[in-house]
Amino acid sequence: MDINSDLGESFGAWRMGDDAALLDVVTSANVACGFHAGDPAGILDTLRAAAERGVAVGAHVAYPDLVGFGRRNMDPTSRELQADVIYQIGALQGLAAAAGTRVRYVKPHGALYNTIAHDERQARDVIAAIRAVDPGLTLMALAGSPLIQWARDAGLRVVGEAFADRAYNDDGTLVSRRQPGAVLHDADAVAERMLRLVQTGRLTAASGREVAIEADSICVHGDSPGAVQMAQRVHAVLTAAGVALRPFAD
Amino acid sequence: MDINSDLGESFGAWRMGDDAALLDVVTSANVACGFHAGDPAGILDTLRAAAERGVAVGAHVAYPDLVGFGRRNMDPTSRELQADVIYQIGALQGLAAAAGTRVRYVKPHGALYNTIAHDERQARDVIAAIRAVDPGLTLMALAGSPLIQWARDAGLRVVGEAFADRAYNDDGTLVSRRQPGAVLHDADAVAERMLRLVQTGRLTAASGREVAIEADSICVHGDSPGAVQMAQRVHAVLTAAGVALRPFAD
Amino acid sequence: MDINSDLGESFGAWRMGDDAALLDVVTSANVACGFHAGDPAGILDTLRAAAERGVAVGAHVAYPDLVGFGRRNMDPTSRELQADVIYQIGALQGLAAAAGTRVRYVKPHGALYNTIAHDERQARDVIAAIRAVDPGLTLMALAGSPLIQWARDAGLRVVGEAFADRAYNDDGTLVSRRQPGAVLHDADAVAERMLRLVQTGRLTAASGREVAIEADSICVHGDSPGAVQMAQRVHAVLTAAGVALRPFAD
Amino acid sequence: MDINSDLGESFGAWRMGDDAALLDVVTSANVACGFHAGDPAGILDTLRAAAERGVAVGAHVAYPDLVGFGRRNMDPTSRELQADVIYQIGALQGLAAAAGTRVRYVKPHGALYNTIAHDERQARDVIAAIRAVDPGLTLMALAGSPLIQWARDAGLRVVGEAFADRAYNDDGTLVSRRQPGAVLHDADAVAERMLRLVQTGRLTAASGREVAIEADSICVHGDSPGAVQMAQRVHAVLTAAGVALRPFAD
Repeated sequence: MDINSDLGESFGAWRMGDDAALLDVVTSANVACGFHAGDPAGILDTLRAAAERGVAVGAHVAYPDLVGFGRRNMDPTSRELQADVIYQIGALQGLAAAAGTRVRYVKPHGALYNTIAHDERQARDVIAAIRAVDPGLTLMALAGSPLIQWARDAGLRVVGEAFADRAYNDDGTLVSRRQPGAVLHDADAVAERMLRLVQTGRLTAASGREVAIEADSICVHGDSPGAVQMAQRVHAVLTAAGVALRPFAD
Repeated sequence: MDINSDLGESFGAWRMGDDAALLDVVTSANVACGFHAGDPAGILDTLRAAAERGVAVGAHVAYPDLVGFGRRNMDPTSRELQADVIYQIGALQGLAAAAGTRVRYVKPHGALYNTIAHDERQARDVIAAIRAVDPGLTLMALAGSPLIQWARDAGLRVVGEAFADRAYNDDGTLVSRRQPGAVLHDADAVAERMLRLVQTGRLTAASGREVAIEADSICVHGDSPGAVQMAQRVHAVLTAAGVALRPFAD
Repeated sequence: MDINSDLGESFGAWRMGDDAALLDVVTSANVACGFHAGDPAGILDTLRAAAERGVAVGAHVAYPDLVGFGRRNMDPTSRELQADVIYQIGALQGLAAAAGTRVRYVKPHGALYNTIAHDERQARDVIAAIRAVDPGLTLMALAGSPLIQWARDAGLRVVGEAFADRAYNDDGTLVSRRQPGAVLHDADAVAERMLRLVQTGRLTAASGREVAIEADSICVHGDSPGAVQMAQRVHAVLTAAGVALRPFAD
Repeated sequence: MDINSDLGESFGAWRMGDDAALLDVVTSANVACGFHAGDPAGILDTLRAAAERGVAVGAHVAYPDLVGFGRRNMDPTSRELQADVIYQIGALQGLAAAAGTRVRYVKPHGALYNTIAHDERQARDVIAAIRAVDPGLTLMALAGSPLIQWARDAGLRVVGEAFADRAYNDDGTLVSRRQPGAVLHDADAVAERMLRLVQTGRLTAASGREVAIEADSICVHGDSPGAVQMAQRVHAVLTAAGVALRPFAD
């Protein structure tokens, strides 16, 4: 099993997240590319730290919206979106080469992630952009979303991910953040939930029913002290149960 | 002999230069990377047009200063400058791959170009950045500047360039733009001057003395109708005299 | 009658529009505020030129999207949108004071203009922002749009505008740019059409039917040579017919 | 006596400083204007909090360099620098009006602050910019710097400030940050030092000699937990000694 998280999200004088702590937990790092977060020098530091620890690197591509942290919807044309994604992957590839590693996968961020999970036009733009840079790159996508099939149809390797701290609906989609209970806060319960997912491919949905989730990676967060502790707990419980943690990209 | 010019300098809704006309004149295109000019979609268009015509592509890297068009001095730290240059080269490499071509060289732009011609600290940062991405890249630099030796000492291939429309001092440096007569405007005279440079390795300096310039590329401009016509005239005169024009990078 | 147009849309080294020519045509200038276009120094030049000629100044506020020229939809929160609009009005007020004039009205630009013509949430955010800076400012809005009533209900003075070069539907809305014939190109016909609007309050819609438009200002464009000539023609025909052209804000 | 500090330096999703804690300590708030830090919504929050507590507001204007936090030297033209400063003051005035307060003074930030303390050309540009927006604004400047006289000669009211946590040379200038001991860390010692400055107009320089400093405001920092505690200590010691703390602008 693979554990992924968002890293490199500091910007200039502003710090975000605890990259050092997370790099001991994750096997894959979604590294910001400068459009929603990340300045080149800070990204390079994160890439060097990931390379040192054998953590696989992915391009965390986003809409061009620093002040909105890539969380606001935008409607770029296909021409714009494709070029924006290519630019970001290339920039990260350059920095990764300088850090002695390489980009293995692409995970869209924030509003772009949510949009392409269901918006076929923008999804196909992102898929085309990835293929245009390097058809050997993998796309990391929400397990169960239509995006996964669109990407596979286009010949792209895809990895589905589950979110450790999110509640699920009966159909395998995430409970909206606007609903109460959408985000889980009990680190022990989350860790056990993820262990069960790894062992059985199933989660308990918010309704209490069982739901099957095809995930090859688990996404954890690191943007608060509690989040880092939850991530560490997931790592500890999986390891203690004998689950081999390694980058999906290996 | 190689002819180079700055391309891809439009930004979003704003046009700059006549890339289509210049691509019929130059053999090497210094393509903006987004820090002083160039948005990803516009850069990609320029790269595709360059690829179609067999024009070699270089990364026109700059300080991060869109509103100042990279023409204002800045004092980034080495950590910042190296990462900024790596980021820009990588971004252009990604777009070049999507356009079916690749980045062959790096030419710093504007204030960065002028600074590293004589500032050893920033020069070594740019050299280190280029080598960190790909030691096979060539650096394009002002013929006769100390930068050329610094880069060669570091193991980098370097190409010196002469400026078609600029007056020279007796020591082979450019007459400052603040001096009268620094910029030449007579297209016929400029073209003959460049032909003589190609044939003899010499120019007539502003003082009237002869000066030797070791240049493997001639830089022309395209940011005004007159500049495009001058570039076309240089191309025509060299071609008529039997000078073979091809990318230095071939 | 008032004639308005978008000015100050250059950005750093990039030129856009012919502000000098337009300032001889318009009585009100919608001046960019830096979010979709306009750098402070260029805006200040435009404001000084407007002040010299007695042209009234409005704040052409936009989404924060330079590379997209404010033409892409975004979904800012109310907190973000209100503060963005206030910031832009304030910045223009500062520059206007330095130029010896003052901001008289606010006209949203591009995607924001189109959105608030019908999206009540964002419309109310813009209205609240204007009132928060100065309740004496006027809002310039699309004649016939629901925005006009929302703004009046909130106590804001509103001026409705007609677009000289756009075809209209029978209900007084603009024919979408995606439809053929949406944009009119015959300068003489457009000028006569505007004269008739001023004299009768009526236009001929795309269907051939007559439609009433309550407009106190006519919007002309200046982003192409043909647009400037059309604007000059509208000005000439109205003037020749004895229509007094003056800023609505006087 | 007045105590000032830098506030509103968060940017979008990134937090910086503890504005709430500092607003209980300071009587004047230097509020970021968006060029080195501060997004409009975050700035507005800070202004509202300052207005609630009767803290005076100043415009913390800077070079346009978000990623470098305004700490890198730049060489804008006079045309650019004047317009940039006017734009920032205006933007903050707009937000301040919306927050129910107003801008009372201008304090340049970072590299701009350091540059204009001795660079007469840029100093005169900043002075001209302030006067162009509102000649009633006060300039806050380094006590003892030539800038103070330049501003007074131009008819501007000036307030000199001392830095609580910085060592001083015998001539009243700050010990460079590159020297050991340039920054003081003992909160109690710093507080006593400031009390003595208020009572006698004198400080002990790094050499041990006494130096006279004409300061009407004391600058404290809030960008680390230790800095906030030191600021609180300065406030407590001055208050306990009966020093009346109030905005210099009142």
